[in-house]
Amino acid sequence: MYRLYDFLPSGNGYKVRLLLTQLGIPFDRIELDILKGETRTPEFLAKNPNGRIPILEIEPGVFLSESNAILLYLSEGTPYLPEDRWQRAKVIEWLFFEQYSHEPYIATSRFWLTHGMAERHRDALEQKQPPGYAALGIMEQRLANHPFLVGDRYTIADIALFAYTHVAEEGNFELNEFPAIRAWIERVQSQPNHIPITQP
Amino acid sequence: MYRLYDFLPSGNGYKVRLLLTQLGIPFDRIELDILKGETRTPEFLAKNPNGRIPILEIEPGVFLSESNAILLYLSEGTPYLPEDRWQRAKVIEWLFFEQYSHEPYIATSRFWLTHGMAERHRDALEQKQPPGYAALGIMEQRLANHPFLVGDRYTIADIALFAYTHVAEEGNFELNEFPAIRAWIERVQSQPNHIPITQP
Repeated sequence: MYRLYDFLPSGNGYKVRLLLTQLGIPFDRIELDILKGETRTPEFLAKNPNGRIPILEIEPGVFLSESNAILLYLSEGTPYLPEDRWQRAKVIEWLFFEQYSHEPYIATSRFWLTHGMAERHRDALEQKQPPGYAALGIMEQRLANHPFLVGDRYTIADIALFAYTHVAEEGNFELNEFPAIRAWIERVQSQPNHIPITQP
Repeated sequence: MYRLYDFLPSGNGYKVRLLLTQLGIPFDRIELDILKGETRTPEFLAKNPNGRIPILEIEPGVFLSESNAILLYLSEGTPYLPEDRWQRAKVIEWLFFEQYSHEPYIATSRFWLTHGMAERHRDALEQKQPPGYAALGIMEQRLANHPFLVGDRYTIADIALFAYTHVAEEGNFELNEFPAIRAWIERVQSQPNHIPITQP
């Protein structure tokens, strides 16, 4: 059985939990508290030298890290990843957009704000506002006239972007002015076998 | 013919130039000066709302952005992307590592230092040193006993990581203490049809 090394509040971990659940794949979940350094122990670094969750243990001793790489691995050959080469390229484009232009602003702000580190990072939080809102603007532009991020159906691109967008307000990013994003959040939440980020 | 919107000093652009050249695929190159805002014009934003190079125009009016998404698109079915599902997953893992844990430190430092912005970003440059060296440490660990990043042959994982690693010293990251990386750089440079970053 797959084993997921995870941290419940993490949107990156949630991506994998959500996809595994929607695929109906059972998995064991190992909770690590990143605030207590549990991903920086020699034992964990032997599993992922980069010291981050999530990692998926495919079989005993065989590990895959990087949440979006895990999504691509698990979704291959399923309805969550298009077969069409161009649509697949567009899914992957959104996955890199998420990690480079969205997550470092919105997820990091949320992490600091929800773990009592706002004061220590006050300037950085302010600097993250414009690029974070720019990322939301790019999503809004796409979703204003499309139901999902790629093609006309739910894919891992939606899972990857949903993870931190639907909790963006916890990072002080208001969604009031993004009606298409708000409609899309509801659309994602109404997919079969959806689970909330708080569910292990 | 493919059209690549590019900025010659960019390692992200270089990845695509290098792969297209090694695949023997001819392409037109459109040089944009990102320092003059040429990727922030309404005309360019219509091609990529994220306002970044490189983008690849696959056919007139059809664009793919995100350098590593372009590498995956172009390499499919070629020797530069393994057919084996697990090896492909490990290639993709390195691609996300590059964009999240390597490029924001090493490439951004190089950009500031080579474009006269060192003084303005002095504190940020210093903050980028530890995570940048950590990324190099993770590469060194892998390359200490493997010739390439995935499996035993040259893939787009090597192209993606080579782009900014081989010019890391321009970003004030010394490679003296990374002998395996230095040997790998020579190995990458000796691949058939290699071109330097300075070659359009």
